[in-house]
Amino acid sequence: MSEIIVRGDIVVQEVATRDGFQIEPVFVPTHEKIRLIDALSAAGFTRIEVSSFVSPKAVPALADAAEVFSGIARRPGTTYVALVPNPRGAERALAARADEINLVASVSETHNRANMGMTPEASIQGFAAIMTTVRGEVGVNATVATAFGCPFEGPEPEDKVLAQVERYLSLGVDGVTLADTTGMANPRQVARLVARALPLVGSERLTLHFHNTRGCGLANVLAAYEAGARRFDAALGGLGGCPFAPGATGNICTEDLVSMAEEMGLATGLDLDALLALSRDLPRLVGHDVPGQVAKAGRPLDLHPAPPLRAA
Amino acid sequence: MSEIIVRGDIVVQEVATRDGFQIEPVFVPTHEKIRLIDALSAAGFTRIEVSSFVSPKAVPALADAAEVFSGIARRPGTTYVALVPNPRGAERALAARADEINLVASVSETHNRANMGMTPEASIQGFAAIMTTVRGEVGVNATVATAFGCPFEGPEPEDKVLAQVERYLSLGVDGVTLADTTGMANPRQVARLVARALPLVGSERLTLHFHNTRGCGLANVLAAYEAGARRFDAALGGLGGCPFAPGATGNICTEDLVSMAEEMGLATGLDLDALLALSRDLPRLVGHDVPGQVAKAGRPLDLHPAPPLRAA
Repeated sequence: MSEIIVRGDIVVQEVATRDGFQIEPVFVPTHEKIRLIDALSAAGFTRIEVSSFVSPKAVPALADAAEVFSGIARRPGTTYVALVPNPRGAERALAARADEINLVASVSETHNRANMGMTPEASIQGFAAIMTTVRGEVGVNATVATAFGCPFEGPEPEDKVLAQVERYLSLGVDGVTLADTTGMANPRQVARLVARALPLVGSERLTLHFHNTRGCGLANVLAAYEAGARRFDAALGGLGGCPFAPGATGNICTEDLVSMAEEMGLATGLDLDALLALSRDLPRLVGHDVPGQVAKAGRPLDLHPAPPLRAA
Repeated sequence: MSEIIVRGDIVVQEVATRDGFQIEPVFVPTHEKIRLIDALSAAGFTRIEVSSFVSPKAVPALADAAEVFSGIARRPGTTYVALVPNPRGAERALAARADEINLVASVSETHNRANMGMTPEASIQGFAAIMTTVRGEVGVNATVATAFGCPFEGPEPEDKVLAQVERYLSLGVDGVTLADTTGMANPRQVARLVARALPLVGSERLTLHFHNTRGCGLANVLAAYEAGARRFDAALGGLGGCPFAPGATGNICTEDLVSMAEEMGLATGLDLDALLALSRDLPRLVGHDVPGQVAKAGRPLDLHPAPPLRAA
C-alpha cells in the first residue's frame, strides 16, 4: 500500500500523461512519455498518474502503459498511479509494478455504459473482486466519475454520489476521488459536496478532479480548498479535453494551479519554474498549443522593464 | 448622475468594446461597434463601458468614441460609461453624452507615467479639476489601476491602494474600481483588499476589474464575492489582453462569469444565450479566436445524446 505524502499545504497529482495524452490524436512516443514523467518526478510531484490499463483498442494513445511503467525512474517518495477500469486492467497494473491503482466508475449509469460498457453496479462488483486480489499489494484509489453532472443525464443527485463514496470505502480503498469528468461543476456545488464527503473520507484521502471546460476550474479548486479539500488532480499545460467540445480546455492546468496556490501562500512542494519549462515543451509533443496561461504570461512577479515615458 | 441599478445578485459591467477592442490590431468598424453595444443592451446589461476618450494617436482602435456614443440606442436603465484619462477626455465624454465617466490612475507611479505620461498625483489633480467641472452632470467612477500589482514595480502596498481609494472618495466620486490591470491578483490578496475597501466604498459602489492573464480570474471573482463584492467588470469572449504576453488571455470572460454565477444560483439579469451568440460572432470582428470557454463547450446543462453502447 502506498503512503500518502503530504509535503505542503496542498497536494497536486499530475495526470497529464494519462488524462491529457489519452485524447490526443497523435501517439506521444514512449521515450518522450518516460522523459516527461521523470522530469515531473524531479519537479517534486509526490503523485503522478502515469497511464491507464484500458483496452489499447479503446485508447490507442496509452497502449504503451506497461513499457512506460518499466521505463520510468522511480523517485523515492513518489507514488506512480495507474488508472484501471476492470480486473484485467488491475492484473496488468500489478505486473507493471504500479504503486497504486485508480478504479473508475461513473455515478451516471448512461456515462458508465458508454465509457465502460457496463452498469456502474457491474463496475463496482469488479472493484470488489480486484480488492480481494490486490489487498495489501498496492494502494487503491477509487474515483466517482461524473460526480458533478453527466453530459447525457445532467445533474446527479448528491445522495447517489455519496452512496458510491460509501460503497468504495466499504471495499477498503485508500482514497476517493470526486471527478468533474466533463467540467460541469460550479463552486457552490463543489463546496456543498466536499463538505458532505470530507467527514466520510477525510482530507488526506479525498482528491478533487476538475476540468476547466467552462473556465471556472480554479474557482472550483478555491471553493473545494475553502471547504477543506487538500488534494487536487491537474494536468500540465491544461492538457485533456472534452469529447463533446473540440475547442474547450481540458483538466485544470497544473502550473496555473501551482502559481495561484503559491501566490496565496500555500506550499505545493513543486518547482514552478521547472513546470513552466515542461509545459512550454508540450506543443512539440502534442502538435498544438495548450491552454495553460502562466506558461504564456509568465509568473505574476516576472517583472518587465518600464517602457520609455510618453509625453503627457 | 447615473443611477446604479442592481437588478440581480451581482452586477456585470461589460467592457469588451473598450478594454477589449483597445488592444486589437484591427479597427472594428464603427457600425459593428454600435450593433454590438445595442445587442449588449438588449441582453440586459445595466452598465456598458462603451469606449475611451483617450488620444486617438495612442489608441487608434477607439478613435471613433464620439461616433459610437452618438450611434447607439440608449436603453432606459442602462448606464453608458466612457473611460477618461484627463480633463480634455472628460470634455469630449460630456459632449458625447456619456452617462458616466470612468477616471483611471495607477497606484504604480511607473505604470502611470508609462500609461498616462504623468505621475499618479498629476492624474488625480486632473480628476479634481474634472469633478469641479462635471459635478451633477454625469456620474463619475474612479479606477485604481495596478491595484493588485504592477508589471514594472511588482506588488503595491495595500495602504497605498486604500489611500488612493480615500482620495477618490474625498473628490466625491460615485463609484470606485479596483483593477487588476495585468492579471497579477490571487484570491487571498483579493479577499484581503476587498475586505478593507468595502467599509470605505460600500458594495453598491465598489467594482472589481479582473484579468484572466494567469488563469485565476474567476477564482478571484469568487474570492471577491465571498468577501462581499457584488460588481464586476468583464469582457465578452474574454477579449482584452496583456501587452507583455501575446498569448495570454485578457479580461475575465463575461459569458463564463455569467454561466458560473447562474449555476451558483446568483442572478445576473443577463440573457446568457444571447451573450453566447454574440461571443461566437467575435472572431469575425477581431479576426482571431477568443478565449471564452462556455461559447465553445456550451452551457453545463446543454446535454448530449448518449453514444452507442460499447461492448464490455
